[in-house]
Amino acid sequence: MDLLAKALPDGRVLTDPDVTDSYSRDRTFLTPGAALGVVLAQSRDDVIETMRWATAHRVPVVPRGAGTGLAGGATASEGCVVLSVAKMAQIKELSPADEIAVVEPGVITADLDAAAREHGLMYAPDPSSYEISTVGGNLATNAGGLRCVKYGVTRDSALGLEVVLADGQVLNTGRRTVKGVTGYDLTGLFVGSEGTLGVITSATVRLRRAPLVPPATIAAEFTSLRDAASAVSAIIAAGCQPSLLELLDRATLKAIDDWRNIGLEAGVAAMLIAQSDATDGQTAARRMHDLCMENGASFVAVSDSPAETEELIGIRRMAYSAKERLGNCLVEDVCVPRSALPDMMTAIEAAAAKHDVLICTVAHAGDGNLHPVFVFDHGVPEPPQNVWDAADEVFRTALDLGGTLTGEHGVGLLKRRWLELETGPLASGINAGIKKVFDPLGILNPGKAI
Amino acid sequence: MDLLAKALPDGRVLTDPDVTDSYSRDRTFLTPGAALGVVLAQSRDDVIETMRWATAHRVPVVPRGAGTGLAGGATASEGCVVLSVAKMAQIKELSPADEIAVVEPGVITADLDAAAREHGLMYAPDPSSYEISTVGGNLATNAGGLRCVKYGVTRDSALGLEVVLADGQVLNTGRRTVKGVTGYDLTGLFVGSEGTLGVITSATVRLRRAPLVPPATIAAEFTSLRDAASAVSAIIAAGCQPSLLELLDRATLKAIDDWRNIGLEAGVAAMLIAQSDATDGQTAARRMHDLCMENGASFVAVSDSPAETEELIGIRRMAYSAKERLGNCLVEDVCVPRSALPDMMTAIEAAAAKHDVLICTVAHAGDGNLHPVFVFDHGVPEPPQNVWDAADEVFRTALDLGGTLTGEHGVGLLKRRWLELETGPLASGINAGIKKVFDPLGILNPGKAI
Repeated sequence: MDLLAKALPDGRVLTDPDVTDSYSRDRTFLTPGAALGVVLAQSRDDVIETMRWATAHRVPVVPRGAGTGLAGGATASEGCVVLSVAKMAQIKELSPADEIAVVEPGVITADLDAAAREHGLMYAPDPSSYEISTVGGNLATNAGGLRCVKYGVTRDSALGLEVVLADGQVLNTGRRTVKGVTGYDLTGLFVGSEGTLGVITSATVRLRRAPLVPPATIAAEFTSLRDAASAVSAIIAAGCQPSLLELLDRATLKAIDDWRNIGLEAGVAAMLIAQSDATDGQTAARRMHDLCMENGASFVAVSDSPAETEELIGIRRMAYSAKERLGNCLVEDVCVPRSALPDMMTAIEAAAAKHDVLICTVAHAGDGNLHPVFVFDHGVPEPPQNVWDAADEVFRTALDLGGTLTGEHGVGLLKRRWLELETGPLASGINAGIKKVFDPLGILNPGKAI
Repeated sequence: MDLLAKALPDGRVLTDPDVTDSYSRDRTFLTPGAALGVVLAQSRDDVIETMRWATAHRVPVVPRGAGTGLAGGATASEGCVVLSVAKMAQIKELSPADEIAVVEPGVITADLDAAAREHGLMYAPDPSSYEISTVGGNLATNAGGLRCVKYGVTRDSALGLEVVLADGQVLNTGRRTVKGVTGYDLTGLFVGSEGTLGVITSATVRLRRAPLVPPATIAAEFTSLRDAASAVSAIIAAGCQPSLLELLDRATLKAIDDWRNIGLEAGVAAMLIAQSDATDGQTAARRMHDLCMENGASFVAVSDSPAETEELIGIRRMAYSAKERLGNCLVEDVCVPRSALPDMMTAIEAAAAKHDVLICTVAHAGDGNLHPVFVFDHGVPEPPQNVWDAADEVFRTALDLGGTLTGEHGVGLLKRRWLELETGPLASGINAGIKKVFDPLGILNPGKAI
């Protein structure tokens, strides 16, 4: 580490164990390995120097944005250097004419969105963590979010990348144009690769037109979870094109109600929150209202006041913090074809009952993407066996229903033991081969993602 | 070939030189190498047998859909076997509830779209060739089209693939869900890889809601090409969100007029055709009308009658055939940031004048994607030097303007000599490394794309 500290400007390398520990964790319960130190990179050159040193000394490097990941992708491994790009946080260019921005990886996602809004544009990807997570971290995990039911995932907004490879070489991928097909899609390959192929030091991302009117919002209560899931299918099938379609189960609503008193009534099994940001969004909202009623909703509120809308979306955004109050959380992320949503919901309830686990579920329901959160005691560092058993059942059901282990959080460390169930051994071999092309020594975030 | 013919069901292998020659060409002027024969695969098993045989005997394989490519990606190489999947043309599943279809690669793109329309859905990718090109070919080139200004390119509709690798192993990539992040994005890697990584035998593609109303269409005439390009920028910047935004220069209009008499008036330098398929499309069309007028249009027609709309779009779809009547065509495909469209247009006109070449340009203007078509004599098999010189100038200008060599046609054979100008040597090495992971013997479409 001394050689590295000498090669970098002063203050870039931190080795105080308390500091190192705080940069070694993400938002999972996982206990990190002891890192040699932390590099707080402030420029591409800092990243290049770090990777050259790591290659020369065969030291594993764990790249890191804000550390809000939910799968352990940024958890430090024993003897690694943690490479934080959080201080590389400049929006280098924002071109309204070309509807693109060029940003450093440490830019907070919500900050980029806010900068775009000044020009009537928006940055669409909005993981629930978007006020604290970084564009670089979102790219590394191909993060989803609430708006992706209409605007797609992070990969859909990534046009080009500057990446520092394991040996310190700088690779530019992609382009500034909205289309382009020269060579293989290296941009798409880096997005979602969880820091195993290179360190993103700059990204050219697509901006989109911001909606012209405030969104129209509905919130519907159901006495049956299955009815709520059916309403989701009906809303999609009717072509309402919601810009947000979120489902909260009773356990989640109760956790929020216990914390912030949202007036949860007895008998409410699920809440559906839906938005349309189209110019004729009120028409879509009325249609969604009707579809909820037809599918057994006990109550549906329609709102077009920004304050009331904020309150409804606020309930959704409180969900994760409300659960963290109850205990340690294993946050899962299965995604199923939309028609399988009712069956998946039912299976989660059954797994909770069978294994006696508290599971609170929120879903990006319009995408079939569910977050069953398995809650266990605060004092317990690792999930107990019944939690793993319930999770195993949930994963296998998702795969049986034609779904996937992870819709948007990534594989990280937490889902590696199930990965090959989904992708098969041939894909594992190919993924390992691709990894070797970029990182022949295997020093970039080893043991993660693939 | 005898061994291969024996391994396959009767009639799959063709070796008659006339037949072989017709399967050895795409829509370029390129003279193919002599193929050993053609396999007309009718099933995945046929593809597996062919690849096993090719691996055993080290024979290059050139996969092929309908052969409508414009870059030479499907041009036969000397001593290869051409592997056509055109007869694998079954739509295996179409799920309105999940908004997906599972198709064999030989399905004609327009047929899939038509099948989806029966359920209120559509298959968005629509390259100009969509009535004769295949879904598999579109995937192999990551084809664009007229609608992609709103709905994205072919990659944006690809969820999962079944691919036969060089050695005959079957790889499944991706998923049936709209989101998913397990492992590297192998689906995205295959899309646009021009048959160099594997042979697609099945694709799970995303369908979208078809528009609820007929599109509103405008056609605007300009006496200055630059004004027309400026109108494009204004339309994008105003957030009109057109579902089609095409620009035709005078040389193109004249070629169409000479063929089909569209009443082209003197002084018209360019025509812009724009559509909105939004529910409130008439509002968008009126706004686009006004923006054209503000940017110097001499005449703007607004249409909402389906017949009149078909006529306007028909003019656009006639463009390529009209040019083929004039001579052999080198069809180019540069794409620039949208704000650079006027400069790129001007540079193309300058290159035409300087090198005394007829260049007719149509553009998917909303994407900054231009097709300058360099016309040379029917009798001449290869473009003469002045055509290559003009093309070279156009490519270099596109790159200088922050653009790319190819927006949607692919690199194939025709653009390989410029490829590294855009991607650099590091990316070339990485592309070669990735190729080797999938195809260590280099038998899949050698010499193409990368």
